[in-house]
Amino acid sequence: MTAFNSGNIFSGLPTAPQAEELSHMLAGNLVNGVKIERLVSRGHVTPEDEWYDQTQHEWVVVLEGEAIIAFQGEREDIHLGPGDYVNIPAHCRHRVAWTRPDTNTVWLAVFF
Amino acid sequence: MTAFNSGNIFSGLPTAPQAEELSHMLAGNLVNGVKIERLVSRGHVTPEDEWYDQTQHEWVVVLEGEAIIAFQGEREDIHLGPGDYVNIPAHCRHRVAWTRPDTNTVWLAVFF
Repeated sequence: MTAFNSGNIFSGLPTAPQAEELSHMLAGNLVNGVKIERLVSRGHVTPEDEWYDQTQHEWVVVLEGEAIIAFQGEREDIHLGPGDYVNIPAHCRHRVAWTRPDTNTVWLAVFF
Repeated sequence: MTAFNSGNIFSGLPTAPQAEELSHMLAGNLVNGVKIERLVSRGHVTPEDEWYDQTQHEWVVVLEGEAIIAFQGEREDIHLGPGDYVNIPAHCRHRVAWTRPDTNTVWLAVFF
């Protein structure tokens, strides 16, 4: 995945609801574990009371659609629309609380 | 730059031509040298006969505008419009041959 490759981040988007959130690796580096992924949600959320607790930082931007990320503790939920990004430091416990049910939400996520 | 932070990738874009391409660091990790940057070009190109020869891989996506990247050797130029991405492996010599002169080209670049 460190080879030359190219594409369009909006190509091959689903036109109907999917059982699961889609994830597609765009690039990565086995040496340092960095991954760049496209995610597509449509109403998908993290299961209730489940929290991501990641060893890597995650920088995420919403390119289409809308989502809400919730954080454990006192940090307020963050609402993301097109162009909105957030950097989630490693071990900052979070979950996807909401994504638009009626259209794709296209995310770009960098795990670093 | 590994702290929690958020914003919109389309905020604060220049409304007039700029002498230099703009770059703005959005996130980074000092431990492994990963950097996530927003770049804004308007007609800016790499100087003629100059090539980037980077120690890191660079994954780049155009979010607005248009650009052409040229590669040293036989690889064909690549034309990037909205959503188009390319992964440029370390030491793959390249240059920005053209960006739209009449509007901002907004790039997201991950050096990893």
